[in-house]
Parts: sequence; structure tokens; C-alpha cells
Amino acid sequence: VAAGAHPVNQPSTGVRRIDHVGVAVHDLPAASRFLTTLLHMDAAAPVDLPEQGVRVQFHTAGDDQIELLQPTAGGGALARFLERRGEGLHHVGYRVDDVAAVLEAVRAAGGRLIDEAPRPGSRGTTVAFVHPKGSLGTLIELVQE
Amino acid sequence: VAAGAHPVNQPSTGVRRIDHVGVAVHDLPAASRFLTTLLHMDAAAPVDLPEQGVRVQFHTAGDDQIELLQPTAGGGALARFLERRGEGLHHVGYRVDDVAAVLEAVRAAGGRLIDEAPRPGSRGTTVAFVHPKGSLGTLIELVQE
Repeated sequence: VAAGAHPVNQPSTGVRRIDHVGVAVHDLPAASRFLTTLLHMDAAAPVDLPEQGVRVQFHTAGDDQIELLQPTAGGGALARFLERRGEGLHHVGYRVDDVAAVLEAVRAAGGRLIDEAPRPGSRGTTVAFVHPKGSLGTLIELVQE
Repeated sequence: VAAGAHPVNQPSTGVRRIDHVGVAVHDLPAASRFLTTLLHMDAAAPVDLPEQGVRVQFHTAGDDQIELLQPTAGGGALARFLERRGEGLHHVGYRVDDVAAVLEAVRAAGGRLIDEAPRPGSRGTTVAFVHPKGSLGTLIELVQE
């Protein structure tokens, strides 16, 4: 069946595409230089998310995006990730039609949620994170435009 | 500048798009079920790469792909990754026009290569891996169609 195919009258929990790949870094400007200079990606302006203690910067290659994430405060989840594992792949953002429907499907399948309900994300999106436990060890961000 | 823009007469080292995201797993059938059942991705047939001691299976969401990788022999790089870090994000595949040109650019910029020269990849591609050290802690696979 096609990606996202589903019985009529049920909300789709299908993934439309990979929205972005998140990479945790210690030094956002240096990491951005790597992507723009060597790999010729376009960089958006960095954006601070003070409530999460992170600064993020999106980089574009075609229709795809790499989100660099750097902690701006100690003690948060991203800072702990970097202490424990060092720089590297942090999460995959999947584009979906209905974050709430996918959260419900994950919950029904026994998956663990980080966000119990959709919340506002960056770039005007609606997002929710799903815990790596039960999700191939992969932190998942559901992204609805 | 546009992604991949470069001076005339030089080979482009620009990334055209994200080709795929590689995820290391212990149990390929269970991981594939997660992607097909819950996230409605289409699964290709699993493929054994005996010389690398891995079995891979591509899953499609729109134009994007998740590559699941499971070791079929102990002692290889993927088996060591799973022992050390558990299941999770393993590498990002970037689509490029000329793997050899990008390898040369990475080398010139002081980056560390895993493959010193392009080699045949799966799906009829030409590929080379770049070491995470110097690449945002992220194992990179360059993919040329």
C-alpha cells in the first residue's frame, strides 16, 4: 500500500516524508560552517528556544533539512545527551498529517510518549516527541505543518 | 547560494538531498513491522551484504528512505556499534553528484575518511563513508546514483 494509505474515515497515521534530521553539537557556528562550506547547504538564521534551553539552526539540501541543536543551558535533555554520547545524530523528524492521531496510535501500540499531546514547534509547526524506547532506539519528532 | 552552487569548471561537492537515514537494529523483522504497521512505510525486500556482515532493508516514506541495518555476523563495525550504544540512529546518507569529488574536498578540509575511494553500494549506487570524527559526530554515507 502507498505510504499513508489507511481505511476510510480513520485519521492517517502514515509518515509523509522525513521532515528533518536533528544533530546535537557543542559548537553551532563550527557545525554550521561544516554543512555550508563543505556540503554547500543553505543555513537559516539560528533560533533560540529559551524554554528548552537550546539554540537550533536549520540547513537545507534540496527539500531536506538538517537541524543543528546546541544547548544554551546546562541540565537539559540535550545537554545530558551530549555529555553521555557526544556530538551526533539526535532525532528524526517525520512529517505527518495529524500529530494527535499518530500519538494515539503509538500509545495504543504500547509505545512511550515524551509529549502526551501535540505542542507548538519551531517554524510554525505542531510537534510531539516519541520516546526512543520502543521506537528502534530512535528519538522521533512528529511534525505537522 | 543554492545548494550545490559552485564555481564553474569545478566538480560540485554540494549535497542534493538526504538519500536515507540508517538505523541499527537487533531484530530486523520487528523493526520493519514498527515502520510498516505504525508509520505506514513501504518495505523493500531485505538484502544481505555478506562481505560487510549485515542485512539491510529499505523503507519508504514519500521520496525518503529509512535503511534498517542488522548484523549477520559478530565482530563487525555494526555489531560493535550495537554493543556499545544499542539500537538507534547509525548514519545519514547524503545524495551527491560525485562521490570522488566530495571525498577529495573532505580530505582537503582535514576530515577523516573511512573509504579512501568510492565503491559499489546497494541499489546500484556508488558510495563512500566519511568518519564521524570531524563530521559533527555523524557517520556520513555519500551516495551517487
